[in-house]
Amino acid sequence: MSAAVVEKSRIREGAFGNARALVCRECGNEVELGPHYACSECFGPLEVAYDFPQVTREEIEAGPRNIWRYKALLPVPTDIETSPNTEPGFTRLLEARNLAAELGLTKLWVKDDSTNPTNSFKDRVVACALSAAREFHSKVFACPSTGNLANAVAAAGARAGIKTVVFIPSNLEQPKQVNSAVFTDSLVAVEGNYDDVNKLASEIAGEEEGWAFVNVNVRPFYAEGSKTLGYEIAEQLGWRLPDQIVIPVASGSQLTKVHKAFQELITLGLVEDKPYKVYGAQAAGCSPVSVAYKAGVDAIRPVKPDTIAKSLAIGNPADGIYVLDVCRQTGGAVEDITDDEVREAIVLLARTEGIFTETAGGTTVGVLKKLVESGQLDPELETVVINTGHGLKTLDAVSGAVGPAATIAPSYAAFAATGLA
Amino acid sequence: MSAAVVEKSRIREGAFGNARALVCRECGNEVELGPHYACSECFGPLEVAYDFPQVTREEIEAGPRNIWRYKALLPVPTDIETSPNTEPGFTRLLEARNLAAELGLTKLWVKDDSTNPTNSFKDRVVACALSAAREFHSKVFACPSTGNLANAVAAAGARAGIKTVVFIPSNLEQPKQVNSAVFTDSLVAVEGNYDDVNKLASEIAGEEEGWAFVNVNVRPFYAEGSKTLGYEIAEQLGWRLPDQIVIPVASGSQLTKVHKAFQELITLGLVEDKPYKVYGAQAAGCSPVSVAYKAGVDAIRPVKPDTIAKSLAIGNPADGIYVLDVCRQTGGAVEDITDDEVREAIVLLARTEGIFTETAGGTTVGVLKKLVESGQLDPELETVVINTGHGLKTLDAVSGAVGPAATIAPSYAAFAATGLA
Repeated sequence: MSAAVVEKSRIREGAFGNARALVCRECGNEVELGPHYACSECFGPLEVAYDFPQVTREEIEAGPRNIWRYKALLPVPTDIETSPNTEPGFTRLLEARNLAAELGLTKLWVKDDSTNPTNSFKDRVVACALSAAREFHSKVFACPSTGNLANAVAAAGARAGIKTVVFIPSNLEQPKQVNSAVFTDSLVAVEGNYDDVNKLASEIAGEEEGWAFVNVNVRPFYAEGSKTLGYEIAEQLGWRLPDQIVIPVASGSQLTKVHKAFQELITLGLVEDKPYKVYGAQAAGCSPVSVAYKAGVDAIRPVKPDTIAKSLAIGNPADGIYVLDVCRQTGGAVEDITDDEVREAIVLLARTEGIFTETAGGTTVGVLKKLVESGQLDPELETVVINTGHGLKTLDAVSGAVGPAATIAPSYAAFAATGLA
Repeated sequence: MSAAVVEKSRIREGAFGNARALVCRECGNEVELGPHYACSECFGPLEVAYDFPQVTREEIEAGPRNIWRYKALLPVPTDIETSPNTEPGFTRLLEARNLAAELGLTKLWVKDDSTNPTNSFKDRVVACALSAAREFHSKVFACPSTGNLANAVAAAGARAGIKTVVFIPSNLEQPKQVNSAVFTDSLVAVEGNYDDVNKLASEIAGEEEGWAFVNVNVRPFYAEGSKTLGYEIAEQLGWRLPDQIVIPVASGSQLTKVHKAFQELITLGLVEDKPYKVYGAQAAGCSPVSVAYKAGVDAIRPVKPDTIAKSLAIGNPADGIYVLDVCRQTGGAVEDITDDEVREAIVLLARTEGIFTETAGGTTVGVLKKLVESGQLDPELETVVINTGHGLKTLDAVSGAVGPAATIAPSYAAFAATGLA
């Protein structure tokens, strides 16, 4: 980390907006805002803390139609929207009447992040990481990734005019390589699995000066981007919190940040204080948090992932214990489903609401279904489910499950014989 | 067409908002609003005509963040946003500083429709067709297509809860089949090319009662959806028209509708009247309009398409002659580029602005480049280029052109040796 440290004098006034410091989530130790990610006292994870001024609904509503409408609540400068960025966020919140009817729910909404600039929620976090990298005068914007993050980093870096270097496992399928390589001339294929790539990234972050690895040394700033999902859901519901929300769990960061967002909105008086339940969704092939939740324990036991939900396949989730805290405190739960159930849920969401989700979204919708069926989620309460990414990125997951109903000669008679008329 | 005619008494008051009639673009004959698409006098194409009330910027700005903010200017009922739809539109208008610098332009914007619900501008037109189908009490929502339109129809129909039947050529690549089949259980593969599929669709539209083929018997309503691209560009520029705009040409409908939108905004006093130039973009392998433009003739000579820009591959474009009219009248032009230039332009847009476009968008950006280089487009004037769809749908186009810069062992030493540090 030392090599990445920026001289304090080079960080301009107001670089991080209303952010006050980085605070250790374990021991509470405060560190000044900078490219730090681990507590110098106890090595616990650092998180951005704020001194918020009064923020009004009207100020937010007058802002741009992207995440920067919430800039007062993020660690970004007040002129953030003038720097080239992909302008993510303010994605659709769709009322899902058909899916609700199918699952026996009274009121259900889908927050659809598949329509973000590079088709996943990662554009939100990367936009915040990019702002931090800019303020730290970083010369390289980088990440290890197998998919969504790589796309988001490469695209955001291209638009911002900052050099990007994106590290992927060399055995990644070619279509996924193309989807990042199109944006950057510095895609690096690493002979090894994702863990190897990740380790290499940490090594480079320690060795090279001026590299901003979004999910390593600027992670505290990066992670704050997920709060915007929570802000948008509340604003799009008419400045209200839902009763229940189902969120996928990979590292667990997104779930904890949506909860943080809801709490901030309450504290700021932007929404009415009310109870809400947070549920976490995992795939059975990588369910360390769900397993701990069900066992009633606090410790997360790392696993070796084996699931089609690759964007959720983090065997040792950094924020797993905080997910347990949030779900238990709010009266929610953490649940997991099989890969077959993931596939079924992708098709279910597509057929009922016209949204094509990737395996992570299939996991979330499938877990919602299981939570209703098992009585863990109240079907009478207003529920939101988050779709974090696009099905075009994980086409293979359903390519065996769906296809033409009939193949016919080009004649009306042939069509009439199909019985589809 | 006769079978599809709806009894007038079944169409409710206000079903088409401020639309007054269908008017023949050739002879001016007026037909009452209904599922008609060809003039009963001269077989010319029908277009929606309106009696607009006073419409203010404030009314529009107070509307939803999708195409329905312009409902007063579309053939849809005033309560359109309450019917389940994919809520397309209000996509990003990004200032493209890097691309502008690369091309030597002073001011350039990209209107990015790749972030629409099913990742192309087709969601706009399909949403308008869906409204018409609903008002006509259609029981089936259908189309012939090879790609974007199939996705949009299948998704919109799923969400609206109306039966969809989507016809595709049976030799369509499996990923493209999956991208529609995920939304509908009635995907029909037809043994033949797109022309055969299209012919079959017209036959079914004539035989079956209550089928709304979006691009056949409800085409006049469908086509109006493209106007929203023009409205949004003007609103997002701060209620101003650009000086120049480059638009892809398949059937030619989109280009003519953007022009129609600009004209309507001027007539309604929503923007200042000013000259603007409209440019059409085609791929050399399917450039009947460009060829006619360059030859200075009015007649479009049909061609057999042979280009990677499949979503533009209409060899006999229905609105080609109107494209010629608009481009000539406004002082623009129609230009075409090779498939190699299309591929290069896809990478150029991705590397400069972080936008991954499909081959149609590559065609448009590449034509913009050619227009500047050939002096046909003024680099000092404010220019907008439309990106109509997403690169994930035409991955193959660039999969040979981009890839990893290096493949390395998972060690810092191996990375340092690449020279990328």
